[in-house]
Amino acid sequence: MHSPCDFQLDPRLEQDSHFFQNWPLCQLRLMDDQQYPWFVLIPRRAGLRELVDLSEQDAVQYQLESRQLSLWMRQQFQPVKLNIAALGNIVPQLHIHHIARFTDDKAWPAPIWGCVPMLPYTEQQLQQKLFHWQQSLPVWPEAL
Amino acid sequence: MHSPCDFQLDPRLEQDSHFFQNWPLCQLRLMDDQQYPWFVLIPRRAGLRELVDLSEQDAVQYQLESRQLSLWMRQQFQPVKLNIAALGNIVPQLHIHHIARFTDDKAWPAPIWGCVPMLPYTEQQLQQKLFHWQQSLPVWPEAL
Repeated sequence: MHSPCDFQLDPRLEQDSHFFQNWPLCQLRLMDDQQYPWFVLIPRRAGLRELVDLSEQDAVQYQLESRQLSLWMRQQFQPVKLNIAALGNIVPQLHIHHIARFTDDKAWPAPIWGCVPMLPYTEQQLQQKLFHWQQSLPVWPEAL
Repeated sequence: MHSPCDFQLDPRLEQDSHFFQNWPLCQLRLMDDQQYPWFVLIPRRAGLRELVDLSEQDAVQYQLESRQLSLWMRQQFQPVKLNIAALGNIVPQLHIHHIARFTDDKAWPAPIWGCVPMLPYTEQQLQQKLFHWQQSLPVWPEAL
């Protein structure tokens, strides 16, 4: 058995995304692709692969955090659709994609994975976006 | 506002999948593609597009049903990964895919959507599968 203290971020997730906030259960990260508002929630528990690997208590907390993120993304980006997915075929560490989709985005209406190569943010874009979003994303747990 | 009684299955979902069971919140359907064990949960409420459109009570119930389905799929199919996704870019009615993935399946490691055309079950396959699975899928709520 893993202890929760053993949590370590998969190096591929670390490379492809930027730290944004730590919430009670999950680390919230921004995927490094300026083509979509694309975040991942990563439960900070060691050894998780599937949503059903979450304890019942953590599953409830995950749902609250996914809901908070989704509500904020809907307000912030006003997308046509949110896409929420736990896939993990390549990086098995449990991480749940939250993506704001638009009819004029690069992949619409297909899922975004594998559609076009990721287009990383510039350093300046990244700082501006994260600072801007930080102002509107309520600090946990004020939004619920 | 929609009343829950107004629930109607989107005709495209109806065409691409087969009724399996009604659970307290969701209709469980089998997608008509023999290439993957691929189910969808469709909350039986009218007017839903996003997971965050579920009431708080329904969100808790959805999570229980997704968990029951996932645990059963893991036991039944012993997949390498489960893929769970709420996309809805083409069919906006809220439906959540649950797919058992294997390293030798047609799309691995890509997501399955748009990878290869769906390959419908024959009538005989369908009857055999549904009968067989019906035996092992616990009737709600015995599994929790």
